[in-house]
Amino acid sequence: VREGLKKLFQTNEEVLMLASTGTGAMDATVSNLFSPGDTVITVNAGKFGQRWTKIAQAYGLRAVELTLEPGRAPQISQIETLLRAHPESRAVLFQASETSTGVQLPTREICELVRRQPGCLAVVDAITALGVFDLPMDAWGIDVLITGSQKALMLPPGMACIALSQRAWEAQSRSRLPKFYFDLAREHKAHLKNQTAWTPATAQIIGLQESLRLIHEEGLQNIFARHARLALATREGVKALGLDILANDSPSTAVTAVRVPAEILDGKRIPRTMRDKHGVIIAGGQDELEGKIFRLSHFGYVGPFDVITGLAALEMTLFELGYKKFEFGDATGAALRVFSENP
Amino acid sequence: VREGLKKLFQTNEEVLMLASTGTGAMDATVSNLFSPGDTVITVNAGKFGQRWTKIAQAYGLRAVELTLEPGRAPQISQIETLLRAHPESRAVLFQASETSTGVQLPTREICELVRRQPGCLAVVDAITALGVFDLPMDAWGIDVLITGSQKALMLPPGMACIALSQRAWEAQSRSRLPKFYFDLAREHKAHLKNQTAWTPATAQIIGLQESLRLIHEEGLQNIFARHARLALATREGVKALGLDILANDSPSTAVTAVRVPAEILDGKRIPRTMRDKHGVIIAGGQDELEGKIFRLSHFGYVGPFDVITGLAALEMTLFELGYKKFEFGDATGAALRVFSENP
Repeated sequence: VREGLKKLFQTNEEVLMLASTGTGAMDATVSNLFSPGDTVITVNAGKFGQRWTKIAQAYGLRAVELTLEPGRAPQISQIETLLRAHPESRAVLFQASETSTGVQLPTREICELVRRQPGCLAVVDAITALGVFDLPMDAWGIDVLITGSQKALMLPPGMACIALSQRAWEAQSRSRLPKFYFDLAREHKAHLKNQTAWTPATAQIIGLQESLRLIHEEGLQNIFARHARLALATREGVKALGLDILANDSPSTAVTAVRVPAEILDGKRIPRTMRDKHGVIIAGGQDELEGKIFRLSHFGYVGPFDVITGLAALEMTLFELGYKKFEFGDATGAALRVFSENP
Repeated sequence: VREGLKKLFQTNEEVLMLASTGTGAMDATVSNLFSPGDTVITVNAGKFGQRWTKIAQAYGLRAVELTLEPGRAPQISQIETLLRAHPESRAVLFQASETSTGVQLPTREICELVRRQPGCLAVVDAITALGVFDLPMDAWGIDVLITGSQKALMLPPGMACIALSQRAWEAQSRSRLPKFYFDLAREHKAHLKNQTAWTPATAQIIGLQESLRLIHEEGLQNIFARHARLALATREGVKALGLDILANDSPSTAVTAVRVPAEILDGKRIPRTMRDKHGVIIAGGQDELEGKIFRLSHFGYVGPFDVITGLAALEMTLFELGYKKFEFGDATGAALRVFSENP
């Protein structure tokens, strides 16, 4: 499992398995790498970016937040400006894919920028990104890379994985924040002995062994291509119904967030009808986006016919809820065209 | 699940489900209830008691540790003396059952003592105790009660459960230690809405529903009686082989730790032979007890024939490893006598 994780993270560093969900690894990042009073830049492209800000503040850090409109990705120049204004910044914390809005962030470009600022780390929450699209940790100079068991690892929630660069380990050794359960140095030492510091989530590790077998059998680049194809088909299908994608400029390969059309007053009825009437589970919007968007995922143990099934259920659902500006078959047809043209 | 947990904890307080293993809940207790510089009394009856000390120290608390010989339970007078010497103590932190040595601690008596000291909390790690023997939280005045999914809840590791008394919640509101993932106030608020603060360990909660069904169908008092009977039979079986129980004065209903006889030089071979040759998994000693003891558990989804199987495998294993001071059938026979005399 340790070797398979390194290949997945595309790193030579040890990947630590924590018995927690992804937020635990985000918490661990802050409590292990920083000290009270440190300045960090957080990129709030949605609910999970905002979580970086909240964690930083909970630990007494000064969080300089770049707040974006829902659906917008940061411009590199915006982060450049913040880094110039705050040369004391210890890190830029962001999501590779912001699940709440379906935005994909320019991880490679952000890392390049951070690398030019000495003493600053690139911290990437890739919970819904790692194993979905290409995020080569060592090649891109990612300092902290995090994922969770329940996304591209295709397991139930309950395990987080985190890897640190040598720069990040140096920062870890200087941090003055208290920690115990999430003491990454202690966990690292245990992993090197094929152990964990505390009781591990054994069922997760056993499951992960099988997930990693599936992943490396298919091959990372093949998986990324499959996910890109499924994402494109989903977007084309949704657009063929006359609907708008929230993150139009930089849509995520992991999840497509779609604006609820004006004809449907209560947007929460879309996921509910999909589930109760058609047995297809999709997500609604969270917090201020509740009722305003719905979200379709297209990664992990899925193929073209899962996308077709989802779009078919969506066509029926929208029609039943009063949105009728399309012909049956428009979404599924557009998706099939994508599959046919991108074999 | 929430109602079933309250019944199991014998409390009216909300029981919080955390996506972590038990040590996470121990960490959460310290970071939520105390502040740097606070004095706490820790009872080190083994590896897990020592863990309380380490966590307290990691968070900048002053830990006054009562260090006991392996296999010894604390005398109430020892804790009384410490409480008198340290009236500023905010809590006594201990294990209801110390898994590393098989000692059962006098939880009820310690709680009575703590109740007489204003501002002092009784914090009970019951990871291998809750659901094993009687620990009525509200009736005994336990302020913090912790368990983990992989013990009497009969699930894989990966979830911890924790309940706080009103006194503990008041302490929680005054704590100045930073926390985020383990912020119990936030978790409490979410639970009251049938949610969790962060992504929960869903598979654990679904499994817990079934465990709680089994537990309450059998009835708590019946379960405690079953466990006591299995523990007694195990102890009598082991003694009939001429072996010594490490925690002779106060043996735990959860686990029996047995001293490796002098005839077997490498005690680690006992669990290894049990597993590899007979397919029976038992535990060895940890840390300084490695190779010196082996441990037999007798709680959860087990009955008399599991104890008989374990003792039968033990008889063969000891014989194979050169300890022959018994007749085959001595251990199993003694256990059967216990079962027969305590129907």
